[in-house]
Amino acid sequence: MNTSVQHLRVDGDRLWQSLMDLAEIGATPKGGVCRIALSDEDKRGRDLVVQWFKEAGLQVRVDAVGNVFGRRAGTDPHARAVATGSHIDTQPTGGKFDGNYGVMAGLEVMRTLNAQGIQTRAPLEVAFWTNEEGTRFTPVMMGSGAFAGVFGAQDMHLQKDGAGISVGEELQRIGYLGDVACGDVPNGPFAAYFEAHIEQGPVLEAYDKPVGVVSGALGQQWYDITVQGMEAHAGPTPMELRHDAMLAAARMVDAVHRIALAEAPHGRGTVGHVQVHPNSRNVIPGQVKFSVDLRNLTQEGLDRMDAALHAQLAALAAQCQCTVEVVQVVKFAPCIFHPDCVHSVRQATQRLGYDHMDVVSGAGHDAVYVNQIAPTAMIFVPCKDGVSHNEIEDARPDHLAAGCNVLLHAMLEHAKVA
Amino acid sequence: MNTSVQHLRVDGDRLWQSLMDLAEIGATPKGGVCRIALSDEDKRGRDLVVQWFKEAGLQVRVDAVGNVFGRRAGTDPHARAVATGSHIDTQPTGGKFDGNYGVMAGLEVMRTLNAQGIQTRAPLEVAFWTNEEGTRFTPVMMGSGAFAGVFGAQDMHLQKDGAGISVGEELQRIGYLGDVACGDVPNGPFAAYFEAHIEQGPVLEAYDKPVGVVSGALGQQWYDITVQGMEAHAGPTPMELRHDAMLAAARMVDAVHRIALAEAPHGRGTVGHVQVHPNSRNVIPGQVKFSVDLRNLTQEGLDRMDAALHAQLAALAAQCQCTVEVVQVVKFAPCIFHPDCVHSVRQATQRLGYDHMDVVSGAGHDAVYVNQIAPTAMIFVPCKDGVSHNEIEDARPDHLAAGCNVLLHAMLEHAKVA
Repeated sequence: MNTSVQHLRVDGDRLWQSLMDLAEIGATPKGGVCRIALSDEDKRGRDLVVQWFKEAGLQVRVDAVGNVFGRRAGTDPHARAVATGSHIDTQPTGGKFDGNYGVMAGLEVMRTLNAQGIQTRAPLEVAFWTNEEGTRFTPVMMGSGAFAGVFGAQDMHLQKDGAGISVGEELQRIGYLGDVACGDVPNGPFAAYFEAHIEQGPVLEAYDKPVGVVSGALGQQWYDITVQGMEAHAGPTPMELRHDAMLAAARMVDAVHRIALAEAPHGRGTVGHVQVHPNSRNVIPGQVKFSVDLRNLTQEGLDRMDAALHAQLAALAAQCQCTVEVVQVVKFAPCIFHPDCVHSVRQATQRLGYDHMDVVSGAGHDAVYVNQIAPTAMIFVPCKDGVSHNEIEDARPDHLAAGCNVLLHAMLEHAKVA
Repeated sequence: MNTSVQHLRVDGDRLWQSLMDLAEIGATPKGGVCRIALSDEDKRGRDLVVQWFKEAGLQVRVDAVGNVFGRRAGTDPHARAVATGSHIDTQPTGGKFDGNYGVMAGLEVMRTLNAQGIQTRAPLEVAFWTNEEGTRFTPVMMGSGAFAGVFGAQDMHLQKDGAGISVGEELQRIGYLGDVACGDVPNGPFAAYFEAHIEQGPVLEAYDKPVGVVSGALGQQWYDITVQGMEAHAGPTPMELRHDAMLAAARMVDAVHRIALAEAPHGRGTVGHVQVHPNSRNVIPGQVKFSVDLRNLTQEGLDRMDAALHAQLAALAAQCQCTVEVVQVVKFAPCIFHPDCVHSVRQATQRLGYDHMDVVSGAGHDAVYVNQIAPTAMIFVPCKDGVSHNEIEDARPDHLAAGCNVLLHAMLEHAKVA
């Protein structure tokens, strides 16, 4: 690190103001944001951010799925870019910070360097990825997935929303069907990618740490479970003659919890959706369907959880004179971020004097896809009560500034001051 | 018992044919019956049964809530009646036997005595009670409850269905608003009341017994439970920081099961209705509402279950960092049938040589209300797989005839052959 930039800091007030200004577009009465991917609000949000990119002197390019990149030239004409970014689409009742923070933090890095007249050897880029939320069009993290080559741009164009409108049509309509091929970057792939994001969980707040150094993201395996028992009258049916699908399902929910605890600290097990049939007060349930969401940091860990799930659910079904069907419906592999990038984040945090801890991301992020084609890491900052995907989502200006300073210095370490 | 009638038996074929003929009214494509209380189908069913009553020489009277009684005169002008009965209304997707069996069995007793020219000292009555099922109008067991003085006839007339139509209007419309005061019986209250019914449970079938001697009916206490936790992302929220309302609810379902097992053989505990919020696959549930149905044969037993429920649910909520609210919404006291009547049923069964066992009714029946004002007992016969309140409800002709023979001889023991 060039000693001349060691004391460089972003402008936290400007960062906050940009977040508040962007949050005006699609603002909801409850203080949140509704800016669903490729909607009119998304177009207005995109237009504003592109205008800011241009005002910051960035060269803007748009790719075939509407990902937008703002590039700040470097002094080395052959150096590969050091990049950052996130998304500006939101959930229908989303907040001001999820995604938007990463994009505004990237813009603030550019503005800070501009204000100080600092040039870098490698070019810098700030991106916003199309349709991270997946609330209107599937798959989630569509833009970064297409950029990483996981999805084809043509296939993405054909994806339709509930009203039958396609991604391709909407990109065309809002003016973001770009001519750059997905994954194409001048001088070749990113040399490094850093994404700043609110944690969307309670860990940093619980441990009172303003910055989380994100070493990876949990893999996810989702299942649909069907427990089949036999419907019967609650009164005339003695306990020992029952085939109570709800009792079996209840014990399975507890088993899912224990399976996750056995994989501490990274194991997660959640039953979020439960559907009981016939769901009548004085009828013993004949069928219960529920979801299982298992997460862990390694594939070996997920495999152990998967085996335990199958074994324990089968045993509990038999114990309750029921049968069970277990169907895996979603699988995301665990992600380990690049050690060099994680190291840069940790070092920047230490040099800046922020109290911090290593964390893993429990949720998916664009960075998880970018990590497949470029060295990547993430920076988390706390959000109030760990709440996200909610209009009451909130974060502290000093935490947001801290995360942005870490981003600035991690990017500078890789891009080098010229 | 007069030795001259010891060999008297009902006509099982005639009983079966009456059940099948009555089941034509409101017959459903799947082989069940839809004859909801005070509907056009109920009127047609009532009219047919009244016609059969009259053809059997019974004197018909109708009371203020539409209960219908067919009376066969006795030789003693002052003797109080020995009665039987049940109901002919059904669930929307009900079967051919629930209720209808008790009424047709009573009619078959009358027909058998007519065919053999047997007179009794006491008069005999066969009743069908209005709205036992409670599927269109509440409360359930309306007619027998009004007859026992638990409900007022005027209050019952004001009860409305979902469309705002009242019981009083419907009784008038279908021609069953009688002028007899509820509870009034010539010569005074029933000397005894016997009700034959399919078991609606699996015990007799499991033990291969054609007849159940019913000694009482379980008391019932129903509860609404609300577990409050905190909604959070399934991924980023470590297990130890969760307030998982579904985990707490699952452990509570298991506790309800254990509370019932501790009161074997009569304790019952059922969670039939569960509602999860927000019920999304990757969100830790913030709230779960569910029902609890506890049953036992004694009030002391129910009190123990109630205390255990409150204590265990509070402890489990705390264990899962949640809170719980327990609200009792329904309470039916346990019912012990009259020892003399139960004895008569048991003795008749033995004399007739039917394999039998003592059982308790897990569900409510009209007999439970009649028991409050007259010595009462019930006779159960098995139903296929214990299934009732279902179009596939089924029962064996030989079992139905056996129960009817027990009814005949129990009634004769109390009414005395003249």
